[in-house]
Amino acid sequence: MEKVKYATILSNMGACSDRFCAGGYSAPVSVEEMFERAASIKKLQGIELVTTWHITPGTKEKVKELLRQSNLSLVSIIPDHFGESKWGKGAFSAKDKGIRREAAELTKEFMDIAAYLGGDVVSLWPGQDGYDYYFTADYIKERTWFEEGVAECCAHRKDVKVAIEYKIKEPRVRSYPSTVASTLLMVKEIGAENCGVTIDYGHAAVAYENVAESVAILKKYGDKLFHMHMNDNYAYWDDDMIVGSVHTIPYIELLYWLKKTGYKGYISMDQYPYRENGRDAVEESIGWLDSMYTVLERIPEEEVAALYESGDSVAATRMIRKYLFNL
Amino acid sequence: MEKVKYATILSNMGACSDRFCAGGYSAPVSVEEMFERAASIKKLQGIELVTTWHITPGTKEKVKELLRQSNLSLVSIIPDHFGESKWGKGAFSAKDKGIRREAAELTKEFMDIAAYLGGDVVSLWPGQDGYDYYFTADYIKERTWFEEGVAECCAHRKDVKVAIEYKIKEPRVRSYPSTVASTLLMVKEIGAENCGVTIDYGHAAVAYENVAESVAILKKYGDKLFHMHMNDNYAYWDDDMIVGSVHTIPYIELLYWLKKTGYKGYISMDQYPYRENGRDAVEESIGWLDSMYTVLERIPEEEVAALYESGDSVAATRMIRKYLFNL
Amino acid sequence: MEKVKYATILSNMGACSDRFCAGGYSAPVSVEEMFERAASIKKLQGIELVTTWHITPGTKEKVKELLRQSNLSLVSIIPDHFGESKWGKGAFSAKDKGIRREAAELTKEFMDIAAYLGGDVVSLWPGQDGYDYYFTADYIKERTWFEEGVAECCAHRKDVKVAIEYKIKEPRVRSYPSTVASTLLMVKEIGAENCGVTIDYGHAAVAYENVAESVAILKKYGDKLFHMHMNDNYAYWDDDMIVGSVHTIPYIELLYWLKKTGYKGYISMDQYPYRENGRDAVEESIGWLDSMYTVLERIPEEEVAALYESGDSVAATRMIRKYLFNL
Amino acid sequence: MEKVKYATILSNMGACSDRFCAGGYSAPVSVEEMFERAASIKKLQGIELVTTWHITPGTKEKVKELLRQSNLSLVSIIPDHFGESKWGKGAFSAKDKGIRREAAELTKEFMDIAAYLGGDVVSLWPGQDGYDYYFTADYIKERTWFEEGVAECCAHRKDVKVAIEYKIKEPRVRSYPSTVASTLLMVKEIGAENCGVTIDYGHAAVAYENVAESVAILKKYGDKLFHMHMNDNYAYWDDDMIVGSVHTIPYIELLYWLKKTGYKGYISMDQYPYRENGRDAVEESIGWLDSMYTVLERIPEEEVAALYESGDSVAATRMIRKYLFNL
Repeated sequence: MEKVKYATILSNMGACSDRFCAGGYSAPVSVEEMFERAASIKKLQGIELVTTWHITPGTKEKVKELLRQSNLSLVSIIPDHFGESKWGKGAFSAKDKGIRREAAELTKEFMDIAAYLGGDVVSLWPGQDGYDYYFTADYIKERTWFEEGVAECCAHRKDVKVAIEYKIKEPRVRSYPSTVASTLLMVKEIGAENCGVTIDYGHAAVAYENVAESVAILKKYGDKLFHMHMNDNYAYWDDDMIVGSVHTIPYIELLYWLKKTGYKGYISMDQYPYRENGRDAVEESIGWLDSMYTVLERIPEEEVAALYESGDSVAATRMIRKYLFNL
Repeated sequence: MEKVKYATILSNMGACSDRFCAGGYSAPVSVEEMFERAASIKKLQGIELVTTWHITPGTKEKVKELLRQSNLSLVSIIPDHFGESKWGKGAFSAKDKGIRREAAELTKEFMDIAAYLGGDVVSLWPGQDGYDYYFTADYIKERTWFEEGVAECCAHRKDVKVAIEYKIKEPRVRSYPSTVASTLLMVKEIGAENCGVTIDYGHAAVAYENVAESVAILKKYGDKLFHMHMNDNYAYWDDDMIVGSVHTIPYIELLYWLKKTGYKGYISMDQYPYRENGRDAVEESIGWLDSMYTVLERIPEEEVAALYESGDSVAATRMIRKYLFNL
Repeated sequence: MEKVKYATILSNMGACSDRFCAGGYSAPVSVEEMFERAASIKKLQGIELVTTWHITPGTKEKVKELLRQSNLSLVSIIPDHFGESKWGKGAFSAKDKGIRREAAELTKEFMDIAAYLGGDVVSLWPGQDGYDYYFTADYIKERTWFEEGVAECCAHRKDVKVAIEYKIKEPRVRSYPSTVASTLLMVKEIGAENCGVTIDYGHAAVAYENVAESVAILKKYGDKLFHMHMNDNYAYWDDDMIVGSVHTIPYIELLYWLKKTGYKGYISMDQYPYRENGRDAVEESIGWLDSMYTVLERIPEEEVAALYESGDSVAATRMIRKYLFNL
Repeated sequence: MEKVKYATILSNMGACSDRFCAGGYSAPVSVEEMFERAASIKKLQGIELVTTWHITPGTKEKVKELLRQSNLSLVSIIPDHFGESKWGKGAFSAKDKGIRREAAELTKEFMDIAAYLGGDVVSLWPGQDGYDYYFTADYIKERTWFEEGVAECCAHRKDVKVAIEYKIKEPRVRSYPSTVASTLLMVKEIGAENCGVTIDYGHAAVAYENVAESVAILKKYGDKLFHMHMNDNYAYWDDDMIVGSVHTIPYIELLYWLKKTGYKGYISMDQYPYRENGRDAVEESIGWLDSMYTVLERIPEEEVAALYESGDSVAATRMIRKYLFNL
């Protein structure tokens, strides 16, 4: 098997809260402890950090040391544009000019810190960039602000990629970068070589995307897949469950297209283990991915090619069955 | 493996149309030819017939002969309460008293014919019993009519079961027997021993039911699962695809609960092979079910029992992975 | 207009958090301040209290005084079966027997306190009673535990109603009391006169229920509508928005059926004003309800009766248009 | 009120079938009779024709005469790329090269006929361009074929617009032009001035689009809204109901954005009146649109501008309430 690089967002190692249980479903876990837990997962190679939660400008040296101790690479930094009340009405697309400025400055600062930590990706998750009610948002102006802000960050330094992670809703009821295509429109408008897209499996699935197709679309229109987040859900909401706990076949086709399109980045877990041991939940996701990669390796390329040529649905289903169950 | 009995609705062997391509995606197939195709599927033992489409009172002898020749059992008859324009505004719950009468008479007539053909199930699919627009339906009166009509049929003869198949929508935008619980309320109100429920995997899934849980609910409140229809979909619409083509794990838990609750009926395919060879699509579904039963057999009962005791989500996911991939 | 009694859950007056912004979108508000805000809403008559958040056994006298000062009635108490980590894996249906006991004791204690405060409803919201992953829940045993626990509470005292509020998902990915019919099955099994159902408009809508029909179903099978929660959403998730901000016509039919079925309880707001002034958001909801009641008053009963007789969808749509726009 | 031009697809005047009731819910209606029905709708000015169903090269003169007699303008021609079995596996993106050729030739031929009939829009609805099962479609190659075919048509003559109508599913389980942004990516790739987009309200709503925002997106990225189809649904499926029968407020914001972005095209009905009188259903939709335009006219532009500046959700909801109910 081609070498797959697994990673996780650091918070997957800790406690989760929700709007009803704001105090958390389990006791808080320190950053150091989360690093230790991550380090104990055998196949894990990389870490993503959320600012405010895991890293601030003042702790970058300490984090560098924690990465070194854990023998983990810095995969990306996710600037906190969503977790403090000031971002509640948007970051890059906020109506408040000062907030928009702050969103860009924060991003640029952490592009530098990412580079300092040996990373080359900043993954933007604009969860608050959107709106909730009718007649409250100027859809054109606010998308334009978003694009201008991200463009400024991309221009800050070319050696760090800026990847926009889309999601159709939550926390805003409607988001601006909502689907793979909606986000690509922005990326094309921004027009920077280091501007691309992060796909989150669950976000895409909730938007009724077949994630394999989303990967293909990013390939077709500019080779813009910069990063991948993995998890699973029941198709209606971003449940952030263990990879493979609900869906099997769509994942196998997704892994196929990642390979076919030459994706070289990390396969990174982004879960919310509300009631689970987060470390074990990530380890289990890696177990599923490994098993699904094994199935993929059994499938001769010419069989897939023949199916894409014929479009024979019965034959496609039979092929998956054959290699999934190793018949 | 405990002997599983596979069946199919006969129309799965033929052509499909939809609202855009009313003439059908392939050439029409005669009833005789559909029987031949069904007979050629090795593991298939039973057939369900839709009245109007496959059988009328005038053709019952001929159908008896076709069943004999094909060596297939009559699993159920599905009275046509949906395919002629007269049923467009409902059958058992139609506002037109004459239509309600006709719905009951048709059902009783085919209960007799089912018995004549060696069957003991009539599966009602009240696809037109519901409504589309606000302020057009008296929800109490129409549900009551529905219950009264079905009760009359159940009283007609006790040796034939009347199984109500629910579906949350389509063809009506909102249906009366919409979910497993909505239908159980009706079944309890009807109060006949021979009145129960048909679960269609896809119908249940579109209503966000975990089908294994739906089976459990029918067990708990009166042991009312009378019949099972199988197919698959993408969770939003009754796509009627090949079993296992989208979902794997939910099917394995479903098969577990069918066994656990002592379901002895047929596992019958209900698909819409618009662009596929229908015979092959059913054969492929049986292939998947067989493979999933094989996985199920690998799972020691005590492991499942322990999971249901602990509720450990990581362990449950690991167990499925272990036996699915035969690690 | 028949006298409508409006209420709100007290937390609607305060700050909201979510899983990303756990610290809240605005500053915390004290219970006293929330009462003051509520008292300033002219048409508001009643309050619902969540235990832990708004009331504990130790503060019942103080709350009594706050109700008196605010001139607000106690509409219901909602026992906290969801907001502390101990409830994370369920309350009445928890696998841990001690937790199940605690859920019942808490409920009974607050039935007494509700009566002490002049109320006669305890509204149970079993948000954690359900499951997330396949192969982790014994659907029969856990529903039975749920029913046994609630039955015990209902037997505790007959002068306080126990109303179960259903929701198809969130915070558990799948809930036991999921739909109006699923909950009615439980209520019938519990079999107590003081056991019934709370409908939350948004919860029902996310389960693809037409809420007017849900009201009718509760009427038909035992007159079991005990309480109503109001809010609005985009049909896919419990967005808990201002009433009428998205849907207009379904609300008008709902109010019609509340009247038709003789509902005498409160119309209570249950919103999550993440980024809004909660007090104003509730006041605005009452404004919408008042306006929609005004539309309803324009509609002659015989016109509705004629539509329910004919089922004419064009005529129904025309009637709503006529009275909505006052043509 | 600025002059709004209403139109309808001709088939709205006739009978509908679906996959269960293939023979139709009412008697077939001739093209002549459908024209007569349309002509009897007072505010209707234009007609859209579907080839095969309403017009063929051989009947163009007759259709010209029917348009003249009815005093109706030809708004668009919709080439039949979906209603004959040969299109079952796609038109512009079909794996069969001959079918792709035929799709382009048909389109070009009807661009000429549209011009002959005084129209300047061909609206493509690629309902069969997509796929159903995993591992059956080469997402990159097939999208490219689609773009190449449409580009060829656009080059055929510049005086006829080619508008692509997107839909996330149905009849294919997954479509290529699925969302407004997915389609815009194709339109930009095609790069022709006369290539744009048709928005169907219901198609957009099922993809969780706020249609007002979709209009804004088309404005922002090249002013590409060429045509509008109107209907309503319950948010999960293209129910093709009467405009305004379910949603009110989203429609008002949509009409606002159509005006704001300078849309000058027709407002055309695209409904499926399965159980209704189609003529009356279209007339009723026009009634709703007229009433909603009246509400819109009451709203002072500066109030909307202020809301888009402040983003105040309570104020926005209050404003809509004020002008909707004319308080």
